[in-house]
Amino acid sequence: MPVSATLAVNEAIRAKRESGKYVLPLGFGEAGLPVHRSLTDRLSRYAGRNGYGSVAGVPQLREAAAGYWSRRDLRTEPSQVIAGPGSKPLLYAALMAVGGDVVLPQPSWVSYGAQVEMLGATPLYVPTIPGDGGVPDPQRLKDYLDHARTIGRDVRAMVMTLPDNPTGTLAAPEIIHRACDIAREYDLVIIADEIYRDLVFDAGRAYVSPADIAPERTIITTGLSKSLALGGWRIGVARVPDSALGDELRERMLTIASEIWSSPSAPVQHAAAYAYTEPAELRDHIADSRRLHATVARAVAGHFGAAGAEVAVPDGGFYLYPDLAPYRSHLEAKWSVKTGADLSELLLDRYAVGVLPGSAFGDGIKELKLRVATSQLYGQTDAQREAALRSAYPLMLPWIAKALDRLDEVLKDLTR
Amino acid sequence: MPVSATLAVNEAIRAKRESGKYVLPLGFGEAGLPVHRSLTDRLSRYAGRNGYGSVAGVPQLREAAAGYWSRRDLRTEPSQVIAGPGSKPLLYAALMAVGGDVVLPQPSWVSYGAQVEMLGATPLYVPTIPGDGGVPDPQRLKDYLDHARTIGRDVRAMVMTLPDNPTGTLAAPEIIHRACDIAREYDLVIIADEIYRDLVFDAGRAYVSPADIAPERTIITTGLSKSLALGGWRIGVARVPDSALGDELRERMLTIASEIWSSPSAPVQHAAAYAYTEPAELRDHIADSRRLHATVARAVAGHFGAAGAEVAVPDGGFYLYPDLAPYRSHLEAKWSVKTGADLSELLLDRYAVGVLPGSAFGDGIKELKLRVATSQLYGQTDAQREAALRSAYPLMLPWIAKALDRLDEVLKDLTR
Repeated sequence: MPVSATLAVNEAIRAKRESGKYVLPLGFGEAGLPVHRSLTDRLSRYAGRNGYGSVAGVPQLREAAAGYWSRRDLRTEPSQVIAGPGSKPLLYAALMAVGGDVVLPQPSWVSYGAQVEMLGATPLYVPTIPGDGGVPDPQRLKDYLDHARTIGRDVRAMVMTLPDNPTGTLAAPEIIHRACDIAREYDLVIIADEIYRDLVFDAGRAYVSPADIAPERTIITTGLSKSLALGGWRIGVARVPDSALGDELRERMLTIASEIWSSPSAPVQHAAAYAYTEPAELRDHIADSRRLHATVARAVAGHFGAAGAEVAVPDGGFYLYPDLAPYRSHLEAKWSVKTGADLSELLLDRYAVGVLPGSAFGDGIKELKLRVATSQLYGQTDAQREAALRSAYPLMLPWIAKALDRLDEVLKDLTR
Repeated sequence: MPVSATLAVNEAIRAKRESGKYVLPLGFGEAGLPVHRSLTDRLSRYAGRNGYGSVAGVPQLREAAAGYWSRRDLRTEPSQVIAGPGSKPLLYAALMAVGGDVVLPQPSWVSYGAQVEMLGATPLYVPTIPGDGGVPDPQRLKDYLDHARTIGRDVRAMVMTLPDNPTGTLAAPEIIHRACDIAREYDLVIIADEIYRDLVFDAGRAYVSPADIAPERTIITTGLSKSLALGGWRIGVARVPDSALGDELRERMLTIASEIWSSPSAPVQHAAAYAYTEPAELRDHIADSRRLHATVARAVAGHFGAAGAEVAVPDGGFYLYPDLAPYRSHLEAKWSVKTGADLSELLLDRYAVGVLPGSAFGDGIKELKLRVATSQLYGQTDAQREAALRSAYPLMLPWIAKALDRLDEVLKDLTR
């Protein structure tokens, strides 16, 4: 039973906030934006849908999700789609369906490693290249796999996150290609977590999915939690390969889904079916969200960079992953900070800044890396968040400006 | 990886229905009634709630569920409540949190056994007493446990279902007491699935929960899928013990929930919070549902009894579990039926009657027992279902009468 580091930290942040204290909210990976009206309308319209429906999801949602991928040059049949109550349970089902140990990028989202351990398997963390997060470094991947096999480990899957949480970066196409080639050579199933795909800041940038490169062995998971800020609604979809392997994985995933959660909430499925048809008003809404995420994430990265932290410029999503290694000796001497967890605790306890330590993402405990989520800065009310979304200059909104000023103060005090 | 027998059968039934064929729908355990208007109104009102919220559930829901139990003489603090996307994932989390092998009543709901196997453990099926379903027979329980321990099995939990699926019966208080005493003696955690509690037909009958008898070691799971027909909404709640063991189980269950599904859908949680305050119009709605379930389940049991099957009179829910053993030699001679699965296949293929074989519930493959769900008989449209709910004489509604006539015809043809 792994202890959930982020659960503990996030509950500590929540408790501090609920006690009335202001906490600079950089800990929690929630999109921080209101639900679009056309989706609340659909949820209301379908509120009477109370049947369990098919375990794979209602036909309307499977068809819409197939269209979503087909429009992205991944031809998809509705039978390749499995809906779940979030992409997280779908990842769990995929990992259980494949079985065995799993290659994870280091760092990577906390729940991959936790899920692998819950399944009685062991993550095989392979470092990523700075700036190319979410994909195990192809230069080292083979050595890690060879070593793992030599010592008898049964590695059967590899996760890639595109773009990445925690680093906010999107790996270059050639890195993805090489990692996929190695997955094929070692007969690994690829699980591509593409939940931030529609939030790549540069909408003109070519997007390469592992399913483009290794279609026979790639399961894609995604959902509406990030692009449409529907995290609390709990809806995700997985795309299984159109192959014999895909058919087998699909059957196993459906058995798992059937026995653990049955199906996602039916009214939510119907609203999600509408969303996956990508009507104009939701495309515009996502474009606005993308601009806001880009502006704020880049600004926060700038503040960390200005304070002397090492930090990659984020490519998508709403995260960054600054490294305070340049201040190691200072932080230890002044604050007795020896680990990332010490650093995040200091930030929460002394400065009321909520962030997560890199160790929660599979990095070493001594690394002074922090996962910083920027999307809770948009506001504390729906009105503020709506204003941030509509603003041409969100950084000038008083509550965002104040938060960034406070961050500057904290970073200065911390590092001198 | 266990194969989901019910998934396959139910998908076969669904496929047959979707192809336009009329299937007498006795397979699927869905409440078969519309959502009450006051709940669809709440879902609409809270559609904008898109935060993940606390893993244990929003405070309003935890408070309301604590009130629900406290009104049933089980004093409960909101901190003892964990919400999940259905009671099924909460059962999975409870089983994982306890770990080890699990005593299951034989027969019992399909997903208990499937979940135990998915967790890498083994169910220890202990037969129930006919008419006292859902509780392992206390006379035999100790022998089974002693034998399991002798051969080195690590049995740590026991499930009870009150009232029971598949048999539709509610075990007598003295049976529950004795089973709980043995659980304490053998230091087993009791997982009490009470999802049908509010559908005990005789509302005046005293209800005994294992949490009344062994409060320190009983986890209760329940949800709104059955009493309020919200299966497709996906909402359940668990009550952990107010004890050191309870605190430990709670922490583990929250870690599991956090890593597998995060939280139930937020708008659904808010509507469920309202439901668990038990306002008058929902109490009346549940009372009407209870009457309808009782009338139809008893009538269907009567038809099976009249046809010569052995069947216990149902006490609650919407199931019965007839045994066609009296016709074993006839069924084998005339139809080559040797197993329960043969029998349910014959019923589906030849008669278009959808039921599940007892083997799916842990009974032996040769048993000619069938799990018959009666709640899909109320109608195929919300208007029919609403009419059934309002009718003083639902058995006289033409679509219900026709279904029961058809059942009679089939049973006659089958048994002669």
